[in-house]
Amino acid sequence: MRVLRYLLIFIPVSLITEFLHFSQPLVFVFSALAIIPLAGIMGESTEAISHFAGNRIGGFLNATFGNATELIIAFFAMKAGLFDVVKASIAGSVIGNILLVLGLSMLAGGLKYKTQHFNQKVINVTASMLLFAVIGLTIPAVFTHTVPSQLLNTRYEGLSVIVAVIMLLIYVLSLVFSFFTHKDLYAVETAEEAAPKWSLKTAIIILVISTVFIGIESEIFVGTVEPMTKAMGLSEFFVGIILVPIIGNAAEHSTAVLMALKNKMNVAIEIALGSSLQIILFVTPVLIFLSLMFSPMSIIFNTFELVALLFSVLIANRVASDGESNWLEGVQLIAAYIILAASFFIL
Amino acid sequence: MRVLRYLLIFIPVSLITEFLHFSQPLVFVFSALAIIPLAGIMGESTEAISHFAGNRIGGFLNATFGNATELIIAFFAMKAGLFDVVKASIAGSVIGNILLVLGLSMLAGGLKYKTQHFNQKVINVTASMLLFAVIGLTIPAVFTHTVPSQLLNTRYEGLSVIVAVIMLLIYVLSLVFSFFTHKDLYAVETAEEAAPKWSLKTAIIILVISTVFIGIESEIFVGTVEPMTKAMGLSEFFVGIILVPIIGNAAEHSTAVLMALKNKMNVAIEIALGSSLQIILFVTPVLIFLSLMFSPMSIIFNTFELVALLFSVLIANRVASDGESNWLEGVQLIAAYIILAASFFIL
Amino acid sequence: MRVLRYLLIFIPVSLITEFLHFSQPLVFVFSALAIIPLAGIMGESTEAISHFAGNRIGGFLNATFGNATELIIAFFAMKAGLFDVVKASIAGSVIGNILLVLGLSMLAGGLKYKTQHFNQKVINVTASMLLFAVIGLTIPAVFTHTVPSQLLNTRYEGLSVIVAVIMLLIYVLSLVFSFFTHKDLYAVETAEEAAPKWSLKTAIIILVISTVFIGIESEIFVGTVEPMTKAMGLSEFFVGIILVPIIGNAAEHSTAVLMALKNKMNVAIEIALGSSLQIILFVTPVLIFLSLMFSPMSIIFNTFELVALLFSVLIANRVASDGESNWLEGVQLIAAYIILAASFFIL
Repeated sequence: MRVLRYLLIFIPVSLITEFLHFSQPLVFVFSALAIIPLAGIMGESTEAISHFAGNRIGGFLNATFGNATELIIAFFAMKAGLFDVVKASIAGSVIGNILLVLGLSMLAGGLKYKTQHFNQKVINVTASMLLFAVIGLTIPAVFTHTVPSQLLNTRYEGLSVIVAVIMLLIYVLSLVFSFFTHKDLYAVETAEEAAPKWSLKTAIIILVISTVFIGIESEIFVGTVEPMTKAMGLSEFFVGIILVPIIGNAAEHSTAVLMALKNKMNVAIEIALGSSLQIILFVTPVLIFLSLMFSPMSIIFNTFELVALLFSVLIANRVASDGESNWLEGVQLIAAYIILAASFFIL
Repeated sequence: MRVLRYLLIFIPVSLITEFLHFSQPLVFVFSALAIIPLAGIMGESTEAISHFAGNRIGGFLNATFGNATELIIAFFAMKAGLFDVVKASIAGSVIGNILLVLGLSMLAGGLKYKTQHFNQKVINVTASMLLFAVIGLTIPAVFTHTVPSQLLNTRYEGLSVIVAVIMLLIYVLSLVFSFFTHKDLYAVETAEEAAPKWSLKTAIIILVISTVFIGIESEIFVGTVEPMTKAMGLSEFFVGIILVPIIGNAAEHSTAVLMALKNKMNVAIEIALGSSLQIILFVTPVLIFLSLMFSPMSIIFNTFELVALLFSVLIANRVASDGESNWLEGVQLIAAYIILAASFFIL
Repeated sequence: MRVLRYLLIFIPVSLITEFLHFSQPLVFVFSALAIIPLAGIMGESTEAISHFAGNRIGGFLNATFGNATELIIAFFAMKAGLFDVVKASIAGSVIGNILLVLGLSMLAGGLKYKTQHFNQKVINVTASMLLFAVIGLTIPAVFTHTVPSQLLNTRYEGLSVIVAVIMLLIYVLSLVFSFFTHKDLYAVETAEEAAPKWSLKTAIIILVISTVFIGIESEIFVGTVEPMTKAMGLSEFFVGIILVPIIGNAAEHSTAVLMALKNKMNVAIEIALGSSLQIILFVTPVLIFLSLMFSPMSIIFNTFELVALLFSVLIANRVASDGESNWLEGVQLIAAYIILAASFFIL
């Protein structure tokens, strides 16, 4: 989305306002607006590099760094001790991808084309892995929520690490599945027909620079969350589950909608569901491992997050099961997101 | 069902016994028996009017007034302050339609025909909307059940109104979907091949008269619920979730079973699932809005209702997914209903 | 699995060590190792008898005595008052069959064949009954868990008996379905093409002897559970939900994996899902009825068991829905099992 580029102006704006100790809610907004185009540029540079790296390694790079922005924001939030914001933003990314991104794509595409079709087999693999991943995430939480809290917390951390290891293993195996043993399944649906606009060297330089700036902006952004929530009367939970994911995923979201408008539903759905899957199977375990450097973060989500995750995944599976989409399905997904967001807001 | 007509005798019977202050459980039974044929007649007159109104407006009328009886009973129950009965009867209507009506239809049809087929695409749209609708109904409840109750009740009412508005919007959009943008999908499965037996004028007169009588009988009926439950040792919850829906839907139920016996499973399933959908997306929001006239009713169902709703919808989706039905599926649905009813009874 | 025969040596070993009052954890292991081949031999003799009994009665025998080992172990555990172990072992059998057995079969078969196909229609009937059965099992539990405990326990027992009767009825009807009204559906997928190795008389003698020994070993095994758990620091719950099912089902498990390796996925999946179904619809009600002889056991499972059951069945339905399997699906099922087992262990 070329138009997002104009938001780059918010990099200097956010830096200056932060430096001059402007009101924190203002800095919050500016740094958020700065992250949006940076995430887009980082994504494009990763794609360009992937193009040079050949199909397999390229696909791997793309898959692994696709959610780098979320990872960086979450890392700084974790460093600042905002564990609840981190976990809320993980859940919110998945929910937002499934309900909002998929919903907007199906609505936008469905208004242009009466019925849109997608490769049921591929999407089924992703949707079914998503169900597994969310259930895997839910199991330890259900157990710890029902057990009296006198049990030692270290146990939960042990369980979190076990689950994280299993998730990461499944992630690696899913890459083996899609790039090696069953790669023909995925043969049809490549998004990238265009030649990359940058040379490999330029792409790497752009990747490094955008990553550095995302880091800087994320640290500023995270630092403003607490004063901003107090000033605005919002809960940190709401910021984590609704605002952070929208900021971190804005670039991706617009790509998905664009693809739907081009009637490339395979790509649109794969962006939404694949990205969700990556967040659970890759970003979450990595964050759990990184947290061991500071103070260990457990993988235990709260009831709201789990219910929202489970419902989102059930809906995703239902919507994906027939290989077709229309505008009404899109509306339903968006409506579910709005009901969720309203509930989170009112909490 | 012509045979239900004989029950009309209970209109005078119930009026007289109520006037003469007979035992309340007796009046409860008489007024219930009077409502059953009235609901059937109201349904038929709506259908006749729809026939004259042409396909679109007719379909709209049929869809919107199909659950008028439930709406009227619920209105008087709400006026009498029996909020728990109202909500139980909403949940019970959905559960009863999905498990009992669909179950009886599949069993009856399945005993006559080995395997019955239905239009998977149409039923999938309905089943998937049903999943969405129930999830939409569940989300605010899950949140309010897990949040400490010191939070103000007014917040729940705000959330209820938001959810009600969204539900109603989805309802209107689903009509747009089925009568305008995707009407060809529904082209095949019309139930009404027969010419209407009444002229438009007669039909309107019959509609008005039956509506008036349903109102009168509903008010009597609702007035007997409290004394009857005390006398019989039943809970109001049981009355709301099991008895009221059976009374309000008896006419529709018999139609669905008849259609199944004629091997018109599309119609039978659409009656069961479509009616459920209408109750959640249309009747419920309307009741929420009406309640603002008295004291605001929240959209928050209790745990029993939610679990029963969710399970029913999951089963409905499973059963609908293969486009086929047989007697064993019918038996399973009925068995699930009996287990639910027994649990409600024992509570 | 011929190789399991060598484990028969543990019959005398367990008897001697029990008689000589060896350390109880040792006797636990020995009796467990003795049960594994006995269960296999009992299964084979039942199959041989079924072969002589003709298709219908044979199929019925096979279906009904397929889980005899679990039934016998559970009977002795119930007699010893270990109700929690009994219920955990029921849940664990279902979970183990769905996640571990199905997972290992899909993984093993998937490593040999890229994509394996199975008869979607048949498996859908089983998977959908499984969903119904687990929901039937969950409903009374959800209600009793949310109702204040001052309600009399006798009520729960009444509800348990009602549910048990319904379950058993559905079981009988499902046999009518598969052996009478819809037997053509199941025509294709017979596992047993080989002639039985034993004469009818020999088979009956072997069945009786193996049953007697399973009974003896089960009583020894059950007697060691309590001292063993204390000595090892394991919970009885963990023993019931993980260890007992593995012991009782080892023979069946190996058959399922063997079938998958022969690319007979229909048989492999039917063993896993059919066995699960039987445990819920047949073994559980029988145990409830038997418990009335001692002190009545309720059908109410705890939250962990229910969540694990529901998730397993949801995954099973998802995996079964496309009529295909591959190694990654197998890995996911096994991973879900490991996460569950780790959670149970940590509890």
